Amino acid sequence: MDQLGEERRKAQFDVDDMKIVWAGSRHNFEVSDRMAKLVASDPGFRKDTRTMLARKELFKNTLRKAAYAWKRIVELRLSEEEASKLRFYVDETAFTDLHWGMFVPAIKGQGTEEQQQKWLPLAYKMKIIGCYAQTELGHGSNVQGLETTATFDHQTDEFVMHSPTLTSSKWWPGGLGKASTHAVVYARLITDDQDQGIHGFIVQLRSLEDHLPLPGITIGDIGMKFGNGGYNTMDNGVLRLDHVRIPRSHMLMRVLQVTREGKCIQSDVPRQLVYGTMVYVRQAIVADASCALSRAVCIATRYSAVRRQFGSQNGGPETQVIDYKTQQNRLFPLLASAYAFRFVGEWLNWLYTDVTQRLQANDFSTLPEAHACTAGLKSLTTTATADGIEECRKLCGGHGYLCSSGLPELFAVYVPACTYEGDNTVLLLQVARFLIKTVSQLGSEKKPVGTTSYMGRVEHLMQCRSDTQRAEDWLKPSAILEAFEARATRMSVACAQKLSKFSNPEEGFAELSADLVEAAVAHCQLIVVTKFLEKLQQEIPGKGVKQQLEALCNIYALFLLHKYQGDFLATGCITSKQASLANDQLRSLYSQVRPNAIALVDAFNHTDHFLGSILGCYDGNVYPKLYEAAWKDPLNDSVVPDGYHEYIRPLLKQELRTARL
Amino acid sequence: MDQLGEERRKAQFDVDDMKIVWAGSRHNFEVSDRMAKLVASDPGFRKDTRTMLARKELFKNTLRKAAYAWKRIVELRLSEEEASKLRFYVDETAFTDLHWGMFVPAIKGQGTEEQQQKWLPLAYKMKIIGCYAQTELGHGSNVQGLETTATFDHQTDEFVMHSPTLTSSKWWPGGLGKASTHAVVYARLITDDQDQGIHGFIVQLRSLEDHLPLPGITIGDIGMKFGNGGYNTMDNGVLRLDHVRIPRSHMLMRVLQVTREGKCIQSDVPRQLVYGTMVYVRQAIVADASCALSRAVCIATRYSAVRRQFGSQNGGPETQVIDYKTQQNRLFPLLASAYAFRFVGEWLNWLYTDVTQRLQANDFSTLPEAHACTAGLKSLTTTATADGIEECRKLCGGHGYLCSSGLPELFAVYVPACTYEGDNTVLLLQVARFLIKTVSQLGSEKKPVGTTSYMGRVEHLMQCRSDTQRAEDWLKPSAILEAFEARATRMSVACAQKLSKFSNPEEGFAELSADLVEAAVAHCQLIVVTKFLEKLQQEIPGKGVKQQLEALCNIYALFLLHKYQGDFLATGCITSKQASLANDQLRSLYSQVRPNAIALVDAFNHTDHFLGSILGCYDGNVYPKLYEAAWKDPLNDSVVPDGYHEYIRPLLKQELRTARL
Ligand SMILES: Cc1cc2nc3c(=O)[nH]c(=O)nc-3n(C[C@H](O)[C@H](O)[C@H](O)COP(=O)(O)OP(=O)(O)OC[C@H]3O[C@@H](n4cnc5c(N)ncnc54)[C@H](O)[C@@H]3O)c2cc1C
Ligand SMILES: Cc1cc2nc3c(=O)[nH]c(=O)nc-3n(C[C@H](O)[C@H](O)[C@H](O)COP(=O)(O)OP(=O)(O)OC[C@H]3O[C@@H](n4cnc5c(N)ncnc54)[C@H](O)[C@@H]3O)c2cc1C
Ligand SMILES: [Ca+2]
Repeated sequence: MDQLGEERRKAQFDVDDMKIVWAGSRHNFEVSDRMAKLVASDPGFRKDTRTMLARKELFKNTLRKAAYAWKRIVELRLSEEEASKLRFYVDETAFTDLHWGMFVPAIKGQGTEEQQQKWLPLAYKMKIIGCYAQTELGHGSNVQGLETTATFDHQTDEFVMHSPTLTSSKWWPGGLGKASTHAVVYARLITDDQDQGIHGFIVQLRSLEDHLPLPGITIGDIGMKFGNGGYNTMDNGVLRLDHVRIPRSHMLMRVLQVTREGKCIQSDVPRQLVYGTMVYVRQAIVADASCALSRAVCIATRYSAVRRQFGSQNGGPETQVIDYKTQQNRLFPLLASAYAFRFVGEWLNWLYTDVTQRLQANDFSTLPEAHACTAGLKSLTTTATADGIEECRKLCGGHGYLCSSGLPELFAVYVPACTYEGDNTVLLLQVARFLIKTVSQLGSEKKPVGTTSYMGRVEHLMQCRSDTQRAEDWLKPSAILEAFEARATRMSVACAQKLSKFSNPEEGFAELSADLVEAAVAHCQLIVVTKFLEKLQQEIPGKGVKQQLEALCNIYALFLLHKYQGDFLATGCITSKQASLANDQLRSLYSQVRPNAIALVDAFNHTDHFLGSILGCYDGNVYPKLYEAAWKDPLNDSVVPDGYHEYIRPLLKQELRTARL
Repeated sequence: MDQLGEERRKAQFDVDDMKIVWAGSRHNFEVSDRMAKLVASDPGFRKDTRTMLARKELFKNTLRKAAYAWKRIVELRLSEEEASKLRFYVDETAFTDLHWGMFVPAIKGQGTEEQQQKWLPLAYKMKIIGCYAQTELGHGSNVQGLETTATFDHQTDEFVMHSPTLTSSKWWPGGLGKASTHAVVYARLITDDQDQGIHGFIVQLRSLEDHLPLPGITIGDIGMKFGNGGYNTMDNGVLRLDHVRIPRSHMLMRVLQVTREGKCIQSDVPRQLVYGTMVYVRQAIVADASCALSRAVCIATRYSAVRRQFGSQNGGPETQVIDYKTQQNRLFPLLASAYAFRFVGEWLNWLYTDVTQRLQANDFSTLPEAHACTAGLKSLTTTATADGIEECRKLCGGHGYLCSSGLPELFAVYVPACTYEGDNTVLLLQVARFLIKTVSQLGSEKKPVGTTSYMGRVEHLMQCRSDTQRAEDWLKPSAILEAFEARATRMSVACAQKLSKFSNPEEGFAELSADLVEAAVAHCQLIVVTKFLEKLQQEIPGKGVKQQLEALCNIYALFLLHKYQGDFLATGCITSKQASLANDQLRSLYSQVRPNAIALVDAFNHTDHFLGSILGCYDGNVYPKLYEAAWKDPLNDSVVPDGYHEYIRPLLKQELRTARL
């Protein structure tokens, strides 16, 4: 029975048009589609044995794939856009991620013109491999607390890079452990015994001839991480520097220059430049979140349509588990979230352009807001995605626990996104700080901008009450928006009021930080809802496409409204009757989405190779494939397992006393 | 600096007394302590290289440990209690878990006296190794849908065991894949073409001489599962039966007998017997939950006291992250949950005795309630524990992502508890069904019993309002209890009312199932809170011990009240002002627990071996140990990695064109 074929026939919209919307443009779709298929059809990129390999083999195979990908990129003369898509579809975390994603951007962002001209051509050709060495054993979140020192030596015109303590060992940088030849090392600049703060330095780690660490340098891999294949394809590393000397010109000096005399000179490049990079990195993380979540949702949705359990009547087929309302209530909000994060990611992309242009025009007015907003969205989307992947795994019952479902590895490789580039709680506290500041300025000249501009209507939002009276009223964008804006405003204002009772504001902030985080979450959820609604204000071509997106947007919003109804009720934005109506509406939205669910995940255009999941395969032919795959486990190399003679037989024969164990 | 020593000095209670409370009795404590130390001090049980092994080595090593554990058990003439504790502290999922935990109990529960006399002595000596083969590729939750057949053959007085379809392949049973010689296979009994439902059959799988599968039997391992070591020490297996013949006497016939003539005779043993086993298995799962959660909490708590980040003043030490209120707000409710689950597990243990006695007295009146309550508590505690372990991992920042933190593997090995022995959502639906039935009988003769007896006060609970006026009022057990009872009652009653509007009750149940699950959760949370409060009514000796437990109980309850304030507000049990007071009280409880946090996790009495975590080690000497451990990864066997010459060098030297990749 072609279960999924039948599902596809039920769809009420044009899936090809939706693919374009998901991809962002026809161009994006075409490049992605081409690169995805290129990777999928090339046996050199197979990944189905990844979870069976021990660490060394696994890592060696990653080195092979990285080299092979680069070879193909060069052979096919791929554009930068195509190359980065190709690497993306290879779908194996590797040192190249850091080289392209952190090392190159650090030089671009923090290097002078001269430095860029020296280093970038080497990096672009991969004549050197670079990584980004910031975190230490003792300091991650608190970058200002880093202990590695870079001391200027007047005599030799060099910096002496040194790890003075055990906790100052660099620890975590990806690509550092085994692959990189160079690193941007963040260290405390010291000139004439003066602490000049943390700056980046280009340090050569290994000989370009034999790959051995240079004198004074100790490097290694920090060991196994979560998951089987997972992130273990990456050589996150440890680095100790013992008075390693580098030329003065290796300090990245775009913002601060150290002269031959050891004087520090602030350049006229604005310090705020870092914001640009931050917005860039974080918009990429949000885009990744929507992608990772869409993979998990695609797997769980397809399998939920294939899996049948209970409800057979008169010997007929059982019920598809996707028809259970509990399954829908767990799955469809995640489907909606994948779309919501996609669109907010698209908007962040725009924001990055906007920020860049403003920086060029020396307009810094929107930067703090852009910074807070990207911090918050990074936190919100990565947390929701990590949790969502695991929920999708559970939605697949027992079979979701097999690596062949693809979900365990997807989870293991995804979760650190909640920690790196800013611990999610630390980020929300930054958002909260910004919100409190915004509230404190509400009466003043300074009007709230960007994603906080709704707070300009604080008076209305503090006292408005939702006027929804029937379930359908909750479909109105204005009803949703007002409820979310009112809730976010009231939570921020309530925190500000409580804070004002403390004589020491920092103490107050610390004491109330759990509440502040909740206010920050409310604000971030509002942003996602707003951007989804704004997207729907655009023209969206394609039969039925817009209707589907409207349903998903409403599911996203009303699911949040239900899950966080405590916020909405406690702040008096809605009544419990209205909350209940929203919930009724949510249920009927599920029914509306149900016949379109398979097509909505098809629209992600994930190849079977990229999904890496038997449960999620396009043809839905789950059971024969699961059965086949099982036999490939090395444990099935022999019928009688290794160890039988030594350990099982003596047990059964009651001969353990003399056995060597 | 002996950070944790200082923390221990701050504690305001006697940790040795708390250890007894945690263990349940002095006897339990002593046995556990002795067995834990026995395992920890024996190099034969080392587990620190587990995550580095490939599957075959990993599995072979598990076989060794299982045999070695048995050898020690025999040598030391350990009692059953001691033996099971020893296996527990070996802390490696293995075929023996199923042998002792499912195979033996199945024979005890479903075998006749005669069958027990035949099989149990063999099993007790491990002359045979058994597993529990119920789930199939196509059927897990819906046991009644199993497809494997056991057809009675009149001529030979045998059953013919057969897998008629691909989806009827047994799939998942632990110990089946490689180790077991026997299985209890659940199959559809067919006599004279009549379907007689699902029953258990003892099937020999492998020869006792050479361990080869017997004729007609195909067996293998189903492949890699979540995590690295994780559950991959277990040989979850696939089994196909091709007309395999077994004697009639191998059907487990305690409840239903098949005679030589192929007649089915119901025995006078009550069918409800299964409930006894179910309560037993589930109370064990709840006890496991508290143990797994306590491990994660112990690791995160100790590391949070060691880890310092930000907040250094005048060059002094930074703030311990455990002092951040956001950290406390994530961590302390989990600490409280570990204790809460421990005590509800203790109570379930009592319930099992009670149920057993009633069964013997042919009193079935409390069984449905006991069944619903254990189903609900299994679901609630395993979900909270799985989520809690991952939260603890995140609480450790980047270092939590290393396998050496112990947390990734703890998570990976724990999560299937949400799926096996009843999918958690399916279980909550069963609870909901029972609640709705209870509500429908409220006016009648049938009074609600056991954990639903609060519903007897439905009239009061439907209209009462909390009278808390100050934050401290929320410390009163009566205030907490009434709020939780009122909320649970109102949610069940509201569902029942909505259901009554459907002409077809089953349709209504399906449509409203998401709401029903929420009502079930509310009921289960009430049970946990109630049992914790009841525990505190007992005499609890030891300096300061009871005070600490009271604080934890209040944290557990008020944290839930805050997290689910939407329920409490929507049902009008409390006002938003009261919700806010509860939250204030919660914050001050955190401050109260803070100085005791380390001692409260010490009270779990986990050895460093059992914890298997560098971040959680007793002496808090985290950084040097992390650093040491890293170098043991096989990837660090050589400074220049395997694959450098083939893949890195050609890349750097721009010689990929001619490289073999
Ligand atoms: C897979 C992976 C890859 C990585 N790659 C790189 C890389 O390439 N280069 C690199 O330099 N680094 C890398 N890192 C390191 C990463 O950036 C850090 O782990 C991250 O910044 C978190 O910092 P931390 O580990 O110090 O967490 P911590 O700050 O120690 O967090 C521990 C706990 O303390 C809490 N906390 C900390 N400060 C506060 C506060 N002020 N208020 C309230 N709570 C607080 C946190 O919320 C958390 O719960 C990587 C990490 C991982 C896991
Ligand atoms: C590690 C592990 C060890 C195991 N060990 C054993 C063993 O030793 N022996 C053995 O026999 N089995 C074993 N199992 C199998 C286990 O018992 C089943 O996986 C479990 O019963 C869940 O069933 P399922 O996989 O069919 O899930 P499914 O029922 O297929 O669940 C899939 C989804 O459908 C939903 N769903 C299903 N029915 C309904 C419904 N009526 N209403 C609403 N939603 C529904 C579920 O909530 C879930 O989201 C093991 C499984 C694992 C993961
Ligand atoms: Ca492995």
